[in-house]
Amino acid sequence: MSLDAVLSRIDADLPAALDRLKALMRIPSISTDPAYKADCARAANWLVEDLESLGVKAETRQTPGHPMVVGHIDGDGPHLMFYGHYDVQPVDPLELWNRDPFDPEVEDTPAGKVIRGRGANDDKGQLMTFLEACRAWKEVHGALPCKMTFFLEGEEESGSPSLVPFLEENLAEFSAPDLALICDTGLFDNDTPAITTMLRGMVKEELTVTGPDKDLHSGMYGGIAANPIHVLSKALAALHDDQGRVTIPGFYDAVPELSDELRAQWDGLGFDEAAFLGGVGLSVPAGEQGRTGLEMIWSRPTCEVNGIWGGYTGAGFKTVLPSEASAKVSFRLVGQQDPKAISDAFRAFIRSQLPADCSVEFSITNGAPASVMSTDDPAFEKARLALSEEWPNPAAFIGCGGSIPIAGYFKTILGVDSMLIGFGRDDDQIHSPNEKYALESFHKGIRSWARVLDALA
Amino acid sequence: MSLDAVLSRIDADLPAALDRLKALMRIPSISTDPAYKADCARAANWLVEDLESLGVKAETRQTPGHPMVVGHIDGDGPHLMFYGHYDVQPVDPLELWNRDPFDPEVEDTPAGKVIRGRGANDDKGQLMTFLEACRAWKEVHGALPCKMTFFLEGEEESGSPSLVPFLEENLAEFSAPDLALICDTGLFDNDTPAITTMLRGMVKEELTVTGPDKDLHSGMYGGIAANPIHVLSKALAALHDDQGRVTIPGFYDAVPELSDELRAQWDGLGFDEAAFLGGVGLSVPAGEQGRTGLEMIWSRPTCEVNGIWGGYTGAGFKTVLPSEASAKVSFRLVGQQDPKAISDAFRAFIRSQLPADCSVEFSITNGAPASVMSTDDPAFEKARLALSEEWPNPAAFIGCGGSIPIAGYFKTILGVDSMLIGFGRDDDQIHSPNEKYALESFHKGIRSWARVLDALA
Repeated sequence: MSLDAVLSRIDADLPAALDRLKALMRIPSISTDPAYKADCARAANWLVEDLESLGVKAETRQTPGHPMVVGHIDGDGPHLMFYGHYDVQPVDPLELWNRDPFDPEVEDTPAGKVIRGRGANDDKGQLMTFLEACRAWKEVHGALPCKMTFFLEGEEESGSPSLVPFLEENLAEFSAPDLALICDTGLFDNDTPAITTMLRGMVKEELTVTGPDKDLHSGMYGGIAANPIHVLSKALAALHDDQGRVTIPGFYDAVPELSDELRAQWDGLGFDEAAFLGGVGLSVPAGEQGRTGLEMIWSRPTCEVNGIWGGYTGAGFKTVLPSEASAKVSFRLVGQQDPKAISDAFRAFIRSQLPADCSVEFSITNGAPASVMSTDDPAFEKARLALSEEWPNPAAFIGCGGSIPIAGYFKTILGVDSMLIGFGRDDDQIHSPNEKYALESFHKGIRSWARVLDALA
Repeated sequence: MSLDAVLSRIDADLPAALDRLKALMRIPSISTDPAYKADCARAANWLVEDLESLGVKAETRQTPGHPMVVGHIDGDGPHLMFYGHYDVQPVDPLELWNRDPFDPEVEDTPAGKVIRGRGANDDKGQLMTFLEACRAWKEVHGALPCKMTFFLEGEEESGSPSLVPFLEENLAEFSAPDLALICDTGLFDNDTPAITTMLRGMVKEELTVTGPDKDLHSGMYGGIAANPIHVLSKALAALHDDQGRVTIPGFYDAVPELSDELRAQWDGLGFDEAAFLGGVGLSVPAGEQGRTGLEMIWSRPTCEVNGIWGGYTGAGFKTVLPSEASAKVSFRLVGQQDPKAISDAFRAFIRSQLPADCSVEFSITNGAPASVMSTDDPAFEKARLALSEEWPNPAAFIGCGGSIPIAGYFKTILGVDSMLIGFGRDDDQIHSPNEKYALESFHKGIRSWARVLDALA
C-alpha cells in the first residue's frame, strides 16, 4: 500500500507542485541567446536548491556554456540516472502569445486545464514530474526509492555543445547507473502513455550566399547581376523533388525500412493523419509520397528550412538587390545516417547549385545520429505495465520525430541504456507561441513516475 | 560672355554650395519609414527656404503622406518645370557604412573627391545641382533665366503614393510648362554625359505564404507538415527559367524589340559588361541569355526578389517549422507592359505554385508603366550640345534601368514632356551603404545645368 500513499500524497500536494513549476518557469532560461546567460545560471541554481530539499547532494558544474546541474543520492536497489533540461526555446514571435511567456498561469481551455508559458512542457514541466514524484516518495518513505543520479542540462535547445566533453571528462561519475530515465517526450495520445524507443537524429546548418560584393540598386543592376535571394531560393527549392524526397545524393543510403513487426504495431495505433494535420490548419501530407504519416514523422529523415532572410525586410519597400541571403536548415536523421556525411553532402549539393560568381559560407553546424533503444531489458516491460496502470489505455513503444541526442550519448559514451518516458501532447506548441502542458499531463505524469519508480526500485 | 560669368560664379561658390548640400543631407528624410515623418517635413521646409532665397515664391503643400515643395517664379522665354525628390532610401545595414549616413563629408578616394552620405546622389545631390545653377545665374543676372516652376517630391523612394492625386487636383497650376527637367539619372560614364530617353516602369509586391496555423516543432511535424519557407522558395525559384527568362504567363507579351537604329547606337557606346559586373564582384550576366548587357539593364523587363524572411533568423538555432514566410518582389517594366496586368499575372502564378492547404496574401502593391521620351523637340538637341560643351565626350541619348515614373505622369496627366539629365555614376551606391556623389558630378553638374538653361532660355 505504500505506492498508494505516495499517489495520495501527490494528489494532495498538486497545488504546491504547480507553484514550484511556475517559479522555475518564471526564469527565462533561453540558452541560445547570450542575453539570457544569467537567467540560465539562475534556473540551474533553483534546481540545485530543489534537489537539496529532496536530500540530494547537488551542485552546479561549470561548462564553457551554461552550467550542468548534477546530484547524487545513495540508496539500495538499482542505480537510476534521471535526465532533463532546464533551458527553453526563444519566445519570438512574442506578439502571438496570449500572455507573457515567462509569467505562467493555469488556464481553463475547452480541452481542460493547462499550464501556459515557455517551458510548460519542454522541458521544465516534464522534468518537474520526476522531481515531484521523488518529493512525494521521500515525504511518505523518508528517503528516495533507490540510488540515484540527477543530471540536468542547460543547453539542450542550443545543440548541447558542452554535453559530450562533460560526460567524457566525468566518465567515472556517470557510467555506473543501471538505467537512465529521460523525460522529454510525449504521450501517444491523450489516453495512451508511451515509451519512446526510436528517436531521429539531427544536423543543423546555417548558410549565407553572397552574390555582388555590396547591396545594389535593382534598377541599375536588376537583370544582369546575380541576386543571392534567387540563388538561395533556387538551391533550397532543389532540396526536395516533386515526390517530397530529399534530392541530396546519397541522402537515403543509410535509411532502413521498418520491420514488418514494427510496421504492424504502428498501423495498430490508429494514427489519425487527417486529425493530426487538421490540428494545425493543414490537410496535405507534405512529406515523401507513399509513406504513412507515422513513417514521415518517426522513421523517415527530413530536411527543413527553419529560417530564411535577405534584402530589405522592414516596413515599406526598398528596391535593393542584396549582397547576401541566408538560411538555417536542419535535417532529422534516422537509421545509420551519419551527421558528418549528411552535412558534407548537403554542402556539396548547395555549392553545386551556385552560379560561378556566387559563393556560400556555412557557419553553424552540429549533429547527432538517430538512436533506437533495445527493449530487451525487462525494465522496459515493467515500466510499460506500470504506466498502463495509470492511464486509460495500455502504454505503447513508439517512435519520435524529435531529436534527443542525449540517449545516444549515454549509450556510446557511458554504456548506459535510456528509457524515454514523457507526458507531452501533440498540441502543446513546444518551440512555438503559447506553449502549454495539460494539467493532466503534469498530475498523471508525477503519478506515472511514482508507479515506474515503484516498479523498478 | 554672361554664361562664362555664371560658370565662374559657380566655381567660386562651390564650397558654399557644398555646405548647403551637406545641410540638406543631414536631415534623415527616409520616406518609407514612418519614424522619419518629421524629418521629411524638415527637409521640405529647408527647400522652401532655399527656393525663397532664389526669389522663388515657394511653399510646402500637404498630402496624405509627405509634403510637396512647390515654387513659382515669373520670367520671359520658355516656362520650365524642375522636378527632384528630397526623400531618401533607408540606410540599413548600418554596420556596412564607413560613416554616419546622415553626417556627410567630402572624402578623398582613389577616384577623386566624393561627398559621402545618404542622398549624396539620390536625389539631394542631384537636385541641388539645379538649384545651385539657378543661384549662380541669379547672382550674376539678378533674376532667373526664364519663367520656372519647381516641384520637389518627398515620396519618390516609397512609390510616390500622393503624386498622381496631387497633380490631378492641381492640373491648372502644373500643365502650363513647355518642358519638365528632371535630375535623377546618371552619366553614361565618367566622361560622357547623357540625356535619358527610356525608363523602365515598376511593379512592387509583398506576399506572405501561410502553411500551418501556428509555428510548429520541426521534430514533431517535420516531414508531414507543409513548410511555408519551402513553398515560398519553390514559388520564387519558379519565377525564372534556366535561360534567365521570367516564366509568368504573358509576361513578355507587351515587350518590344529594340529598333535597329537604337541597337546600333547602344552598340556604339562600348559598354564594358565585364567591367560593369566586375565593379560589384560579379562575372556572369544573370539575365536573359542572348541579350546584351545594356538590353538587360535598359530595355528588358526584370523580376527581382528584394527581400525575404521567415522562421527563426536570430542568433543560434531554433528548429521551428514556421507558420509564415514572406517576400518583397519588384518588377521593372518596359514597352507597353501594364502594371496592373503584370501584378495580376504574378499573383495568379504564385497561387498556382501553392499546395492546396497553403495560402498567400498580397499586401503592398503599386506600379507605373515604362516611359520613352520623344527626342523630336529641338530642345533635346540643344541640351545635348550644351552638355557636350562641359564634358570630355559628347552627350548621348541613353536608357535607364531604374524607374522614374514621374516622367510618365507629367506626360499622361499634364501633357508635359520631360528631359532627364543627371550626373550620377554607376558606382555611387545609391540605395546601398556608403552612397556617394563625385565632387566632379556635383561641380560639373551645376555647370551643366547653367549651360542647359542658357541653351533653352
